[in-house]
Amino acid sequence: MEDLILHEDPRSGNCYKIRLTAALLGKPLRRVQYDIMNGETRTPDFLRNVNANGRIPVLQIGNRFLPESNAACWYLAESSRLIPSDRFDRADMLRWMFFEQYNHEPNVATLRFWLLFVGEAHLNEFQKGQIMAKRAGGEAALEVMEEHLKEREWLVGKTVTLADIALYAYTHVCEAGGFRLHDYPAICRWLDRVSGLPRYVSMD
Amino acid sequence: MEDLILHEDPRSGNCYKIRLTAALLGKPLRRVQYDIMNGETRTPDFLRNVNANGRIPVLQIGNRFLPESNAACWYLAESSRLIPSDRFDRADMLRWMFFEQYNHEPNVATLRFWLLFVGEAHLNEFQKGQIMAKRAGGEAALEVMEEHLKEREWLVGKTVTLADIALYAYTHVCEAGGFRLHDYPAICRWLDRVSGLPRYVSMD
Repeated sequence: MEDLILHEDPRSGNCYKIRLTAALLGKPLRRVQYDIMNGETRTPDFLRNVNANGRIPVLQIGNRFLPESNAACWYLAESSRLIPSDRFDRADMLRWMFFEQYNHEPNVATLRFWLLFVGEAHLNEFQKGQIMAKRAGGEAALEVMEEHLKEREWLVGKTVTLADIALYAYTHVCEAGGFRLHDYPAICRWLDRVSGLPRYVSMD
Repeated sequence: MEDLILHEDPRSGNCYKIRLTAALLGKPLRRVQYDIMNGETRTPDFLRNVNANGRIPVLQIGNRFLPESNAACWYLAESSRLIPSDRFDRADMLRWMFFEQYNHEPNVATLRFWLLFVGEAHLNEFQKGQIMAKRAGGEAALEVMEEHLKEREWLVGKTVTLADIALYAYTHVCEAGGFRLHDYPAICRWLDRVSGLPRYVSMD
């Protein structure tokens, strides 16, 4: 495989997904770090050479650049046990990964970012006005996961897939965004299953 | 292939993606319609039997249910020409599909929904307060597409893929959300390429 470089901010759960996928598969990954709080992913150089959308993570494969965390995880995991071999299960795995980016990340990850890194006192009025809606949206997403995991060990099929990795990243640190993990016992058992996997690495 | 049923609201671009994918591939699809304005996807029956997340579209395959529009498109298109055979291109296609759900749909589709179906006069204060941010977010997403399409005919590789279908759905009707297509000439040429495809079907 070509040389793999992860352009990342180590505080980002989206970046962590890619590191966890690579670790579980035993693939080495070189890391280049940016500080998103200082606008380092919005510089003309970054926009021209790494990602015109001004965001990390970006997985660099040789001289090609792949933005979007879940697409990067897919690239790394193709033909591995982290992607189901059954056609329906494979699509169902993508279903949870799209759910993660639409229903979970914009609520759970954004509140963590605002409360842990920006600080509630420094939020602007627009951000403050969205806290309640993001709290409700995040709780609804966690509730969907809780119900699904009550009778299952993994989100899709009988073993860990990228769906679990994608949703693990921000779920296991959701308390930093004010969510209460003890309200979700099935999620807690599932988090322990993920962190108990061979070759698991923790978030920085 | 098993019997395919699309649970949809025909006004939704997310549902249209699935119909367009099926049409381009010549796959028949039975349609069951719900009125999201009347809460028909939040009934106990729908939540229990179709999608616990209370959303359409859901693609029913035999007796199994697959939510998330882009996952349903993936299921339909597996092993077809709509998914690239090259590994990087396949992940890059998913990259644009995640971009669509994260950067494009929550801005472009939501403003269309609010302005065309709810009506500006009926928006609540929370929604009104988000219009400017969603306008800016939608324009930024369209600008990323415009720059990318200036030197390309399709979003990924040399031919149409699911990335084009996913982003076509709400882009081609974005003026209903107050976006101005004539600001994006490369996007306009790309929209014509999509609508000129053999077996293309229009949105209802």
